[in-house]
Amino acid sequence: MHATGTTPPAGELGLLEGLATTRAIRRYTDRPVTDDELATIMWAATRAPSGSNRQPFRFLVLRDGDRARRARALIARAAEQMWGAKREADGYRSGSGTDPASPKARMARTMQHYTDHVAEAPVIVLACLVRHRPPTPLEGASVYPACQNLLLAARAIGLGGVLTQLHTFVEDDLRHVLDIPPSVGIHATITVGQPVGGHGPVRRRPLPELVFEDGWGASPAWAIDPPGTRFTQAGPPPG
Amino acid sequence: MHATGTTPPAGELGLLEGLATTRAIRRYTDRPVTDDELATIMWAATRAPSGSNRQPFRFLVLRDGDRARRARALIARAAEQMWGAKREADGYRSGSGTDPASPKARMARTMQHYTDHVAEAPVIVLACLVRHRPPTPLEGASVYPACQNLLLAARAIGLGGVLTQLHTFVEDDLRHVLDIPPSVGIHATITVGQPVGGHGPVRRRPLPELVFEDGWGASPAWAIDPPGTRFTQAGPPPG
Repeated sequence: MHATGTTPPAGELGLLEGLATTRAIRRYTDRPVTDDELATIMWAATRAPSGSNRQPFRFLVLRDGDRARRARALIARAAEQMWGAKREADGYRSGSGTDPASPKARMARTMQHYTDHVAEAPVIVLACLVRHRPPTPLEGASVYPACQNLLLAARAIGLGGVLTQLHTFVEDDLRHVLDIPPSVGIHATITVGQPVGGHGPVRRRPLPELVFEDGWGASPAWAIDPPGTRFTQAGPPPG
Repeated sequence: MHATGTTPPAGELGLLEGLATTRAIRRYTDRPVTDDELATIMWAATRAPSGSNRQPFRFLVLRDGDRARRARALIARAAEQMWGAKREADGYRSGSGTDPASPKARMARTMQHYTDHVAEAPVIVLACLVRHRPPTPLEGASVYPACQNLLLAARAIGLGGVLTQLHTFVEDDLRHVLDIPPSVGIHATITVGQPVGGHGPVRRRPLPELVFEDGWGASPAWAIDPPGTRFTQAGPPPG
């Protein structure tokens, strides 16, 4: 399933189309992710660039191993904490959240389902960074491109996933269970599996709000969304 | 040139193949990048995920505008500082660097060329992040996936680029020239253009060094590089 040839297999998803239609996937079927699929995804992830090509990214895969089971229990606890806090902070149970048909209520159901089932995700990947200098806000340049490659590769072979920061709620315990050294940063908790439902065009803010030319806030005339683009507001659904 | 349809155009690069063959491109022809190409690249970039879909990423494009020219001069100065420091720190003029045929000497020539010509790159993009909380090492999760999409989309349409952190050397001056607010982080300086030479399979460390399962340092049996994978050591070429 590896992509090393020069001609894409017939029917393979195109690169631009893949970029435009890779959704955050939070519901998975029970089908396990195979070794071959994991090898394909991880190999693609590690093709990403990093500063001076140091390749400081490390991917720690959790499936059904002994330590994986303990880590999964920690991540489930983290998800409960995360969603409990977010539900209140972002007012998911007030305003339009009280209408079951609203986008806000729909997102709340998705997040509740994710929280209840994250421990059973077919694969959980901790994306880590071996630091060669003190932490900075820019160090993610050497790990998040690889995370994006991981999610795009999953999309390419019919899987899907979502990048979270769930580890931050249980980081000390996770490090202990998995022997992650103090010099290593944990930068993402990514769940992967076969999607229930599918991928498709993502929703974003209109392009002129996101792209400027020649100075901050100056939207260029060429920043035009193509026909059929679907829009959304930024951030959690408004109350 | 936008990718909104459901069927990739005949001959379009496949998604997996694109992930495996997007190189850092540091030499560009004189051909300008068109408005349509920029729209395609930026639209693809902004399809990337971000925390709570807040879409805090902003892309500030520099071409031939008045302020762009001033910013380009600053970035050229930054490149001189960066390469001057790196050349000494990483010993590019000692050890194997003294052999013009060595990988080290070849990389040194590429970096010198990039330094000398970065101000003339067809497009320079500053990838920025509108912060909603204090800076953290994890905040890049909401901007670097979009940077990777940008580079992959460039690849898809026959262009290429490289992600740098050149802005860090001249950040105050850049903010002044381009009116970038203090609350906004500048996370990458990306140059884009038509490659001199081409893309192709990238070189990385062997997969078992980068992927673990069930615990830190434990390479799983399935972490196998596909036949034909090209390897390299991590980081700057050794002396």
